[in-house]
Parts: sequence; C-alpha cells; structure tokens
Amino acid sequence: MTVNAKRRNVKKLIAFGTNLQRIRLEKGLSQEDLAHLANVAYTTINRLENGRLNTGVSTIFDLARALKVSPKELFEF
Amino acid sequence: MTVNAKRRNVKKLIAFGTNLQRIRLEKGLSQEDLAHLANVAYTTINRLENGRLNTGVSTIFDLARALKVSPKELFEF
Repeated sequence: MTVNAKRRNVKKLIAFGTNLQRIRLEKGLSQEDLAHLANVAYTTINRLENGRLNTGVSTIFDLARALKVSPKELFEF
Repeated sequence: MTVNAKRRNVKKLIAFGTNLQRIRLEKGLSQEDLAHLANVAYTTINRLENGRLNTGVSTIFDLARALKVSPKELFEF
C-alpha cells in the first residue's frame, strides 16, 4: 500500500471513530455501555473512537446491533 | 461471543460478500481487476465474496475507492 493510501485510510479511520462516538453519544451510551452491549473490550471502543484500530467487519455488525443502527450508518461521515 | 451472535455474523459476512460481488460485476470488473485496483490479494476478494473473510475497515475503504462507491454502499444489503 502506498504512503498516500495509508494516510488516506488513517484519516478515514479517524472520521469513522468520530462518527461512532457521535452515534454512541446520541444513544446516551458510555464507552463501557457500548463495549458491554457489543460484547467487545472497552479498549476496542476507545481505540476505535480515536481512529487507532482497524477493526474487522464482524465487529462493525456487533457495534451496529448494539447501537440499533444499520451497519451503513457507521460509514455515514 | 455467543453462538447465535457468531451465526448472525456469518450470515452477514455472506450477505456482505454477495453485495460486494454484485457491485463489482455492475462495474464490469473481474476479481483480479478489483484486487489490483484495491491493492489487495486476489484471494482476499475471493474469500470476501464467499463470506469467508472478516476483513478490516481499511480494506473496506480501499475496496470502496477501487469500486468508486462510498464505503456505506458496501453495507447496503
């Protein structure tokens, strides 16, 4: 992967994380609440929201289910 | 993760793969073409389309860019 492609993806992961945090807060959930509902570690939520985790698609499905949104809403940013 | 959650995610990965294949074919691309454009291995595309790969979010961004669609379109299924 080129340096540019990597840089682009870093920016997108940050935007993804910011969007995840926005949806979580709209739902009135803490990071701990979401971690529990999605059955993932608290650190997963924290690192995701800070754009520091390239999580798998399955976790996307778990997060969407926990937030009661469609998976595609996690990519509306 | 519960057995049910796992089963649900397997179904979603298969639906994700079917949707990816639909978009790829609409764009008139072969699996090799998409692999080259997204800078991933051919086996990644093949396994994804068969619902057998829990790929990372970065690869979602690379695939969307290669297919000239928004990342959320890869989750419209």
